[in-house]
Amino acid sequence: MTVPVFGQIDPPQRLLMGPGPVNVHPRVLRAMSADMLGQFDPEMTTYMNETMQLYREVFMTRNRWTFLIDGTARAGIEAALVSLLQPGMTVLIVRAGRFGLLLSEIAERIGADIRTIDLEWGEVASLDTIEAAFREHKPRVFACIHGDTSTTTAQPLEGLGDLCRKYDVLSYVDATATLGGMPVDVDGCGLDIVTAGLQKCMGGPPGSSPVTISDRAAEHIFSRRHVEKGIRGADAEDGYGTRISSNYFDLAMVMDYWSERRLNHHTEATTMLYGARECGRIMLEEGLKNRFNRHRAAGAAMTAGLRALGLEVYGHDAYRMTNVTGVWIPGGVNGEAVRRRMREDFEIEIGTAFGPLAGRIWRIGAMGYNAMKHKVLLTLGALESVLAAEGYATPRGAGVDAALVVWNQVLPEALKD
Amino acid sequence: MTVPVFGQIDPPQRLLMGPGPVNVHPRVLRAMSADMLGQFDPEMTTYMNETMQLYREVFMTRNRWTFLIDGTARAGIEAALVSLLQPGMTVLIVRAGRFGLLLSEIAERIGADIRTIDLEWGEVASLDTIEAAFREHKPRVFACIHGDTSTTTAQPLEGLGDLCRKYDVLSYVDATATLGGMPVDVDGCGLDIVTAGLQKCMGGPPGSSPVTISDRAAEHIFSRRHVEKGIRGADAEDGYGTRISSNYFDLAMVMDYWSERRLNHHTEATTMLYGARECGRIMLEEGLKNRFNRHRAAGAAMTAGLRALGLEVYGHDAYRMTNVTGVWIPGGVNGEAVRRRMREDFEIEIGTAFGPLAGRIWRIGAMGYNAMKHKVLLTLGALESVLAAEGYATPRGAGVDAALVVWNQVLPEALKD
Repeated sequence: MTVPVFGQIDPPQRLLMGPGPVNVHPRVLRAMSADMLGQFDPEMTTYMNETMQLYREVFMTRNRWTFLIDGTARAGIEAALVSLLQPGMTVLIVRAGRFGLLLSEIAERIGADIRTIDLEWGEVASLDTIEAAFREHKPRVFACIHGDTSTTTAQPLEGLGDLCRKYDVLSYVDATATLGGMPVDVDGCGLDIVTAGLQKCMGGPPGSSPVTISDRAAEHIFSRRHVEKGIRGADAEDGYGTRISSNYFDLAMVMDYWSERRLNHHTEATTMLYGARECGRIMLEEGLKNRFNRHRAAGAAMTAGLRALGLEVYGHDAYRMTNVTGVWIPGGVNGEAVRRRMREDFEIEIGTAFGPLAGRIWRIGAMGYNAMKHKVLLTLGALESVLAAEGYATPRGAGVDAALVVWNQVLPEALKD
Repeated sequence: MTVPVFGQIDPPQRLLMGPGPVNVHPRVLRAMSADMLGQFDPEMTTYMNETMQLYREVFMTRNRWTFLIDGTARAGIEAALVSLLQPGMTVLIVRAGRFGLLLSEIAERIGADIRTIDLEWGEVASLDTIEAAFREHKPRVFACIHGDTSTTTAQPLEGLGDLCRKYDVLSYVDATATLGGMPVDVDGCGLDIVTAGLQKCMGGPPGSSPVTISDRAAEHIFSRRHVEKGIRGADAEDGYGTRISSNYFDLAMVMDYWSERRLNHHTEATTMLYGARECGRIMLEEGLKNRFNRHRAAGAAMTAGLRALGLEVYGHDAYRMTNVTGVWIPGGVNGEAVRRRMREDFEIEIGTAFGPLAGRIWRIGAMGYNAMKHKVLLTLGALESVLAAEGYATPRGAGVDAALVVWNQVLPEALKD
């Protein structure tokens, strides 16, 4: 066999203004270059405990069970659903975009009894709609997406916890695209399980999924605990419930691993743990309020800039995610040609779309380390030039000017209140 | 809430001579500090394709389907089993250590019809034993562990492929602990699916699982393909088989993502991909034969050194893994006290054990970047000192001397043949 040995890793220095992954904060990459520790060395378990504490703050919760799942954001979703649901159990899912569909895809494979609130892509479910569906379907679990990047829309979460408790429903929320950028107020909203990723507003790389679990959800999951034979001690405590259908995603075992019991499960992805810990540290140093305002400024400036270029922004202003903005591709413009020029001439990436929105909108992100004034301005300036080159006349300079006004004047004024 | 912001990542510079994770090659950590790319940017897909090609060499195969699963080694195991097996399908599993038990644990959760070859921990199954079990149980799938770190024993794989084809069985082998250290000759042995990790002999961090899949196994898996609704195009091709019960571990979808179709599934863990690619590059630069010999030297020197200290090495010489060595804890010695002194006085980690071997053997690794002469010698020297401090009399200096002789003289002579 021939032996190809390719050159060393050397990616172009590209500005990633798509729906994620985005550029990683350099401090996170530096933290990830530290060498390994033994899995149960005291320094390692200390880092694990510190990460739990940092993510309690990030998730705005006191939940004891706040830790990492070793996989991408999608791994977190599956771990939550497979640990909550069992075959035949009724789950109510809001489907208003690609990731709502993903929730039901995963629940189908588990064999759950799936009921849905089906909305047009980009719409949100009101509390009244959800309550009516609770009455009709009597679900054990409710699941929805907080910010669905496929539609750039954020489902409001306020009041969900009270409603779920009234009907004895456990809630699951995917906050992959919002954690670290918009408030994910787990205790304030009374959410039971929330999972996320690092590669959006947290400013980290994909590959680790933070999760937080309420005590009542943990109790439900522990009722399904079955300790592995190979590590079974005299103190093995099995639950009475149906065994969880995945080993890797069995949150009862993962919690045993992250607890003082330290029952061996997987080998913790040390480098990703270092990265997740640094993402959390950076967020807490910045302060949650400052961070949410920075994302809000970036989203407002981007939206104003796009409109000043004569483009139509997708979706409802009232439910817009702050960190990723959808914009209709103007008639006669080839969306992919624009994306290619953005990348080849300016080394800036903007996003395409999925499903019914494929080829119809671009998705432009400004999140994590990229939710910064200069990055928004550079993107708008480049887009203006590329649109002109593709034959779409824009008022030259208007996008950047409008964004600057919003960032420097309009938003600071609004935030005073 | 109070906001704890802990100090920056700063692990001690510890020599990790346990069963893994071990110290990562510094080049791998440097490669992992590169910034992100967009998921479908041409440079990213090029890195993905290069990684596939590198791991074909690492796995000694021409399998088209050779790629990474985003999770720890255990994620690779579950992805393989859940994509091969369905409820009621018969699987034959060799259980001779902790990880054989893990295979049946995962298969149980899938609902497979499980038949086992149960051996004492540390024994191996002969081809005759396996063939007799094929005749008796008529399995569709055969699964075993190549190197089980819980017993430091390697199951021979030669002849398995021919046997499996004779009985129309698909084989799965977990090579987490051997890939990069001992030959995992996928095509030579005719194996169908092999998965691994980076954190042992590959010299990388945990969190990515290389996998290779034969064409006939891929055909079986594609017969179970169901494309997700949210990304479904007009060309969606669903298979006729039973749907795979996991979304994240659905290898049909993961293959679609790694193929020219690039159907979006998870968001590839970019940093782990960079690391995996660098591990592969380093291995190919060293050369497979040199690398296997280096591990063989490390294992032989460690074994000789331990014996010269008067310790009894665990297991059979004929089936010993080259990269991790089990050694009986001598009577009257507190195994955990020794491990603590090793760590606290010498910053060297050696491993404890699981199940029936817990508290009875230590497991000492020398793999990947740590399969080096000086690291073996430093470990033996430290162990001698620690054993003396714990009241166990050893012939002082004998371990290091014996290991040096093996490394410098005995083994080079043997390798001439």
